[in-house]
Amino acid sequence: MNKRLIVASTSTVHGSTYLEYILPTLKTFFKEAKEILFIPYARPGGISYEVYTAIAKKAFLTIDKNVKGVHEFENPIEAVKNANAIFTGGGNTFELVNQLYKNNLIEVLKKTLEKGTPYLGTSAGSNICGVTMMNTNDMPIVYPPSFDTLGMIPFNINAHYLDPNPDSTHMGETRETRIKEFHVFNKTSVLGLREGSWLEVIDNVITIRGKYTARLFQQGKDAIELESDIEIQSYFK
Amino acid sequence: MNKRLIVASTSTVHGSTYLEYILPTLKTFFKEAKEILFIPYARPGGISYEVYTAIAKKAFLTIDKNVKGVHEFENPIEAVKNANAIFTGGGNTFELVNQLYKNNLIEVLKKTLEKGTPYLGTSAGSNICGVTMMNTNDMPIVYPPSFDTLGMIPFNINAHYLDPNPDSTHMGETRETRIKEFHVFNKTSVLGLREGSWLEVIDNVITIRGKYTARLFQQGKDAIELESDIEIQSYFK
Repeated sequence: MNKRLIVASTSTVHGSTYLEYILPTLKTFFKEAKEILFIPYARPGGISYEVYTAIAKKAFLTIDKNVKGVHEFENPIEAVKNANAIFTGGGNTFELVNQLYKNNLIEVLKKTLEKGTPYLGTSAGSNICGVTMMNTNDMPIVYPPSFDTLGMIPFNINAHYLDPNPDSTHMGETRETRIKEFHVFNKTSVLGLREGSWLEVIDNVITIRGKYTARLFQQGKDAIELESDIEIQSYFK
Repeated sequence: MNKRLIVASTSTVHGSTYLEYILPTLKTFFKEAKEILFIPYARPGGISYEVYTAIAKKAFLTIDKNVKGVHEFENPIEAVKNANAIFTGGGNTFELVNQLYKNNLIEVLKKTLEKGTPYLGTSAGSNICGVTMMNTNDMPIVYPPSFDTLGMIPFNINAHYLDPNPDSTHMGETRETRIKEFHVFNKTSVLGLREGSWLEVIDNVITIRGKYTARLFQQGKDAIELESDIEIQSYFK
């Protein structure tokens, strides 16, 4: 195992441009990579792969990296295998997972990340680093063949984690209630990552980065807040 | 076709008790029914079928109706077939649909509702009246064998519909954006029902009830608001 991952809650924080808050980190993280393979399958707002890839390309140009979409390759499996670095963008997790299965990329992505190809995920692209995609906030607009994902971390991600709003009069479930419902049926722990937070995964060392704490939900236990800049892998033994 | 359905956005509106806002309507709607068969599979917050059924029972006692949970019957298929009336409560739509398939209740529910057994759905129990459950807001905490649902109405429901909050700094998708993403992949129209609204379905006549308008999303068109107390079935021809 020789993993190198950045697993970010969001691509964009309020009031800044695409990836802006994390570009200084990415400049170091992707230092060795000339070109980044972009997986645009999550298509936020249903935009095309071309348009989405152009957005990623524009952001990475500012740190002198080229970006190429996986859809531009004749053989996406080979494209993943041979990539210098990989970035999976956010959007709809159901469609992302659906396309990863359709294109037979799940296994090759696992193996490629395990051998050490640096990987950035944002939002849906982070959800797939977990054991399953069962803690996505997205709408099930397509039916993927499975909810199982890459298992690059031994828990699930809830991206864009939101604390309950005490002033809300809306009767829909809070994020915390939804995750508690998940634990009625599943043992896997869930980490709620607030926008602006990310995980740095180096081999089996997992550290929360960014200025917020993250909220850990474990089956049968009260949720707890985990501090930034501290290793957290021992919670998942 | 002889359908009689109430398809409600929520069981509970802010500041009132379970079903309170709709009990006067239900008293008339369920006039002929002595006992209501309750389907508790959606288990909000993961509560047990027994606890959930007790909550429904308590509310219906105030209008002199008995409630019995489908899990109390040895043969749930026969229980559905023979019911005077049926109520499916809210909770997690994925688990509800999962259990309906596991218990082989999808087909029998369709046939029973088509023959005229009065049906109340709230939230997840309303989502299943649509063509698919693809516009649920719920978390995919279990993997159902299909997203196809009862198709009692020729469109999908988005329950607990929420207008975008212009003051929000959260970068997660709005409800409208999510439904637009759905229409990149699917043709089925979606009706956003605000909390306190419900559909009254009598044969093929569909009327929005309650004090709010409902928001209709059709593929390739701008969303529109539909008024309460006006028949809407012509939008789905």
